[in-house]
Amino acid sequence: MIYLDNAATTKPNETALKKAAVYVTEQYFNPSAPYKAGEDLNVALKIARSNLVRHIADENVFECIFTSCGTEGDNAAVFAYGRRGNVVTTEVEHSAVLNAVTELKNRGIAEPRIAKVLADGRVDIEHLLSLVDEKTTLVSVMHVNNETGAINDINAIAKAVKEKNPRVVFHSDGVQGYGKIPVKLSSFVDLYAVSAHKIGGLKGVGALFKKKSLAFRPLIYGGGQESGKRSGTENVFGIKSFEYAAEEKFKTLEADNKRLYAYQEKMTALLDGAYFKRISSKDGSPYILYVSAKILRGEIIVRLAYDRGLIISTASACSNNSKRRYSRVALACGLDEKTADGVLRISFSPETTEEEIVKASEILNAIAKEYAPKMR
Amino acid sequence: MIYLDNAATTKPNETALKKAAVYVTEQYFNPSAPYKAGEDLNVALKIARSNLVRHIADENVFECIFTSCGTEGDNAAVFAYGRRGNVVTTEVEHSAVLNAVTELKNRGIAEPRIAKVLADGRVDIEHLLSLVDEKTTLVSVMHVNNETGAINDINAIAKAVKEKNPRVVFHSDGVQGYGKIPVKLSSFVDLYAVSAHKIGGLKGVGALFKKKSLAFRPLIYGGGQESGKRSGTENVFGIKSFEYAAEEKFKTLEADNKRLYAYQEKMTALLDGAYFKRISSKDGSPYILYVSAKILRGEIIVRLAYDRGLIISTASACSNNSKRRYSRVALACGLDEKTADGVLRISFSPETTEEEIVKASEILNAIAKEYAPKMR
Repeated sequence: MIYLDNAATTKPNETALKKAAVYVTEQYFNPSAPYKAGEDLNVALKIARSNLVRHIADENVFECIFTSCGTEGDNAAVFAYGRRGNVVTTEVEHSAVLNAVTELKNRGIAEPRIAKVLADGRVDIEHLLSLVDEKTTLVSVMHVNNETGAINDINAIAKAVKEKNPRVVFHSDGVQGYGKIPVKLSSFVDLYAVSAHKIGGLKGVGALFKKKSLAFRPLIYGGGQESGKRSGTENVFGIKSFEYAAEEKFKTLEADNKRLYAYQEKMTALLDGAYFKRISSKDGSPYILYVSAKILRGEIIVRLAYDRGLIISTASACSNNSKRRYSRVALACGLDEKTADGVLRISFSPETTEEEIVKASEILNAIAKEYAPKMR
Repeated sequence: MIYLDNAATTKPNETALKKAAVYVTEQYFNPSAPYKAGEDLNVALKIARSNLVRHIADENVFECIFTSCGTEGDNAAVFAYGRRGNVVTTEVEHSAVLNAVTELKNRGIAEPRIAKVLADGRVDIEHLLSLVDEKTTLVSVMHVNNETGAINDINAIAKAVKEKNPRVVFHSDGVQGYGKIPVKLSSFVDLYAVSAHKIGGLKGVGALFKKKSLAFRPLIYGGGQESGKRSGTENVFGIKSFEYAAEEKFKTLEADNKRLYAYQEKMTALLDGAYFKRISSKDGSPYILYVSAKILRGEIIVRLAYDRGLIISTASACSNNSKRRYSRVALACGLDEKTADGVLRISFSPETTEEEIVKASEILNAIAKEYAPKMR
């Protein structure tokens, strides 16, 4: 099988897993245990925190709170800082942010204000800023869109937001950005949520990078782990394999991106223009190619491709739990319903090869050629 | 090293891990993916849910919501059902319950009412019932105490609570009970939180068993996983290894308990009565022996024992994040400060051997004999 659904989840990195295996087989202790084996694990966790933050931020400014997933990190951000007043976010955010913001509204806490996006999926900054006022407590703008791959310049956006209201807390969902898109978080950004399994780590592990100077109200209370910011026995094996997987990713980030951009162009050229139209822009994430099939439904192509050995997706995996007909992200980008109905998300990993790109294009072209005439 | 701190965490079960490894190496897909490989994982999760519930409850009555740990399960229960009015719990609950209940108070939502316990750590049912009134929304009583091993008859307690106020939601922290103490949840119990890593599963996985008939308000919102009750990509590997570890545990539960009860008696007999006093009662959990050193501080014994190859603990691992001098559980059980200062929690697993029990007793006796005279 050719696996091109890496934005949904990645195959865990074997090097990282092997290196972390010791935390299952030997150092399986509880990091809160009052003896040396426990203390050793606390040191191992501290190192992981530091290593994960350092890739994208100044560790004197940002701290790392481990979570169980990107969704938990987003929720922790929204529920801690979405206070009385309004919360500004975008219409293409991951449902981890959007549904948490909706819950704030349901609880009568904050009014959600939803910024529009441009055709390529980046937030319309002018519109976003027009929604920010003195009653805004939180602004949440994702770093990289999980469907279109559109990249937001979160440092610039955070700066502009704070110029309008310096008391606003700025959060960014970095799940599709971390380990993929080069960035150095400025101090205008307050929070950045990441997930391990999108970059070769395991499912069930994430982190919220938080400006140290910012007070925090936890989402989960208990034994006081993570300096009281997130209780629950630390998932040491998951955390260390996240640390090691990130290390692998950042090591070759620039070279990987250059290669994957070339693959995107190659695939765009190979896909038959009579049937496929590229939606994602050239300055989006190198990891995501977003196209629309002109005649067939995306869902049908995904199933046909699967039967022929190619795994791709339509919209975000997370949105498949709701039975929406069209991707809300595709519609927000201004696609008409017919185009939205044919969207395909083809997402790469550093392991993706040129041969797979060629073969994948052939499979998709063959499906379109075979089935499109029947649909006319 | 002789590892007798299994109440803090257990060594992951190798059989379970090997069986679940396929979810890392091959079936690493996202269960929400819109193709067969995703659907297959949904089936695998459904089987895990069913198998985990069936061990202790009727799966027509109870459903399984996967969480990231026991703490999250307890928090989900407290924050979903602790509504305006009061919440009744016990003074020896795990901090995952107690600190969540305190947070309800801080938010001005509910008044906490704390029931006293008997000398062995079981809740004083009469006192508990006296706290329940028409304004009680939630009662939370742990199944097995994580320090003393005291077992509460949660079915009987839940029944008595509902007789007083049938609208109360009854939750039980089952983290030290599940897979260890035989129980069949009656329909008077509404919620039961469990954790994988206490019975040979991995850290970072837990579940909340919930009566299906009960409406639920999630703690974490997003992509709608777990039927909308707990969003976030499902930790398939963690969940399946939990399922398999539980299977191993329940297979030999009765025989293991019989053997471990015998070990407790043996260790009680072997420990020098001049220095050690057993606190836990004979009808507590076979997994926990709670003793107090008469002269030395528990913390010091734990460190000395560690240096001689024996791992035991003082209080709950989770409470080591707060810098309390005395175990609040020990004090709640009525121990004087001197006795509370010497408490040791010795906790077993099915892998514990008689030889280890003998050797552990010898190590503890030798430490007491050597250091006690210096302390007089």
